[in-house]
Amino acid sequence: MKKLNNISGVKMAAASSNTRYGKRDDSLLILIDKGNTVSGKFTNNSFKSAPVILALSHLEQCSGKEVVLMINAGNANAGTGKQGAKDVLACCKSVSKEMSIDHESVLPFSTGVIGEYLQTDKYINAFIKASRELKANNWKQAANSILTTDTKPKLLSSLIKNGSEEIAVTGFAKGSGMIRPDFATLLSFVFIDAKISKSLLNDIHENALSESFNRITVDGDTSPNDSSVLVASGNLKSAVKKGTAIEKKIRSTVITIYKELAELLIKDAEGATKKIIVKVMQAKTLKQAESVAFTVAESPLVKTAMFGNDANWGRILSAVGRSPEVNDVSKTSIHLNGVPLAKNGNLHPQHSESKASKAIQKKNLEITIKLGLGKDHCSVITSDFSEDYLLINSDYRS
Amino acid sequence: MKKLNNISGVKMAAASSNTRYGKRDDSLLILIDKGNTVSGKFTNNSFKSAPVILALSHLEQCSGKEVVLMINAGNANAGTGKQGAKDVLACCKSVSKEMSIDHESVLPFSTGVIGEYLQTDKYINAFIKASRELKANNWKQAANSILTTDTKPKLLSSLIKNGSEEIAVTGFAKGSGMIRPDFATLLSFVFIDAKISKSLLNDIHENALSESFNRITVDGDTSPNDSSVLVASGNLKSAVKKGTAIEKKIRSTVITIYKELAELLIKDAEGATKKIIVKVMQAKTLKQAESVAFTVAESPLVKTAMFGNDANWGRILSAVGRSPEVNDVSKTSIHLNGVPLAKNGNLHPQHSESKASKAIQKKNLEITIKLGLGKDHCSVITSDFSEDYLLINSDYRS
Repeated sequence: MKKLNNISGVKMAAASSNTRYGKRDDSLLILIDKGNTVSGKFTNNSFKSAPVILALSHLEQCSGKEVVLMINAGNANAGTGKQGAKDVLACCKSVSKEMSIDHESVLPFSTGVIGEYLQTDKYINAFIKASRELKANNWKQAANSILTTDTKPKLLSSLIKNGSEEIAVTGFAKGSGMIRPDFATLLSFVFIDAKISKSLLNDIHENALSESFNRITVDGDTSPNDSSVLVASGNLKSAVKKGTAIEKKIRSTVITIYKELAELLIKDAEGATKKIIVKVMQAKTLKQAESVAFTVAESPLVKTAMFGNDANWGRILSAVGRSPEVNDVSKTSIHLNGVPLAKNGNLHPQHSESKASKAIQKKNLEITIKLGLGKDHCSVITSDFSEDYLLINSDYRS
Repeated sequence: MKKLNNISGVKMAAASSNTRYGKRDDSLLILIDKGNTVSGKFTNNSFKSAPVILALSHLEQCSGKEVVLMINAGNANAGTGKQGAKDVLACCKSVSKEMSIDHESVLPFSTGVIGEYLQTDKYINAFIKASRELKANNWKQAANSILTTDTKPKLLSSLIKNGSEEIAVTGFAKGSGMIRPDFATLLSFVFIDAKISKSLLNDIHENALSESFNRITVDGDTSPNDSSVLVASGNLKSAVKKGTAIEKKIRSTVITIYKELAELLIKDAEGATKKIIVKVMQAKTLKQAESVAFTVAESPLVKTAMFGNDANWGRILSAVGRSPEVNDVSKTSIHLNGVPLAKNGNLHPQHSESKASKAIQKKNLEITIKLGLGKDHCSVITSDFSEDYLLINSDYRS
């Protein structure tokens, strides 16, 4: 891994609540100094967890002040009603008292099992312990402490040159199932070491999401807890204005980090043995391109065929044909890693079973679907459905 | 099984093409005497097989004349372009010549692997052999000959009392994957021993489909070959008019047979260990009820939880909440076989993990979801995602 760059005024520490994961760190605090701006985006699922509801409300009130991100893994605190709302508020208040800040400055995030009450005292003890150990360079501890069924931490960092100055961007994420746009059982925290206005930060955030977490899908399921936070530290050395060269550099770096985090999530998706890019081209509209890409990427029959190394283009074309946005597959062609499978909605004249079989053995697959209907396009990244996906999800209550 | 009632003027036989399934019968002919009416409904997938395209065209031309249903299993003749169209036409012409009827009176149906060319000569030989062995009471042979990944034939029969007369209804179907409304890799053939006008027959057919094959889903995937045929023999003893008592009896019997065939398909769905009814009530609109029912029934995380005997209502509520028709789960309650799981979008006050765990062990599950938003409702039947589903579909090219 490249160097993990610190962000000025950002410190963090994690501790263990001694609940679901035993002694593993599962309770993370991140303190962000005054002068920051924070952009938060949350699940579009109508079923929202207690911390998401409270974070939405606190986010309105905490601009510019010291902010604490309070994250626990192991319990989603979702579907827990009034008790859940009370529990997350109690955590915020305990942390704010300990740290002498307003409780509205604490933004809560949870991931883990749905529908169980929080063991509030135990998590509070862990948060208070963490609050006493905050450090600037605790990225690895932080990235590990938020994992659930993930097998690896997802942590990235970049440095942007700005004349003689350098601007750091560092972030981490978790999530491996219930992943699809709008978006996933996903927590993501990315920090930019610069001063950026809230509206510009929101704009960059939305831009990055639309090209990353909203373009990946594991199983089409979404969670009540999905949260993505983009923080600008407020570092006055770099005050960034819209449309400037440095703003464009920051935007493209942030997008790259989000895309790479999204790819890391897919690579570590539950039980995944392959990374599959579904690239739809020549669509009449973006809506059509998106619909085809997600219908193919979420088709259980396509995903099981990929797992079984079967270059079964009939299933791919069947998924294209059932997309509600498609009523013509007569110009559709399909390639797998460049190997022709179908042309004009039929077996490709150059189809070779041996070449197709060889192509599908690869761990990284690109299914290119040209609809022949227009100029719009969309790419979605997904994983295959493996025996392990099944065993993980029939076994683990998440 | 109850008695299999013959239909006047309907004879059938199957033979083997000696292709994919070796010596197993895979080529079925059904001859229907003059005076019949035939209602055919086909896949809504834009990707349509050659036999579906030809059957649609022949269906327009064959009214009242002798009709032959020509069905092969093992090869779907889909994605096979001009060659596929030529092949299915050659089969129709050979059969029509042998039987001295118009080739437009032969309705072709195929099921099996997509994207391979038909071994036309071999199937023609089998059809010609079958044409010489037609019998009225060959239902079991017929029901077995059309199977692909199905493990059991699906064959049903009923007798309706009409004064001193009796009207027989007999039918059979196949399909175990790629199943969802509009509809499935499904072939279904049902016969009514009565004279019924084409418009009334179409009306009964649509009515029966909307309550049966359009209310089941295995994996959300659909095929290019789905076909459902409802035949009225033309038996003059019973000329049926719309709105009469006997028409209502026939309609309800046909609906019952379609529903039972649909249930048999789900019970034999690829790898299924459970039958799951998702019953959505108190929806604002029928569209909302349908959207919730299918989103829950097709959620991989719900289906794997059911397989794993995990009464994971958080996943169910997450699926409700991501339905595009839902923006409020605050009044949603969930029961499993009568056991309370969730109320007002949260853990049910009477929730008992031990009762829920006991309920989910059952082979027949009913998930009742009350949205608290209105009066519309919809039920969908599905199966779980098991290890066998995965192995069947990563192993078999269908």
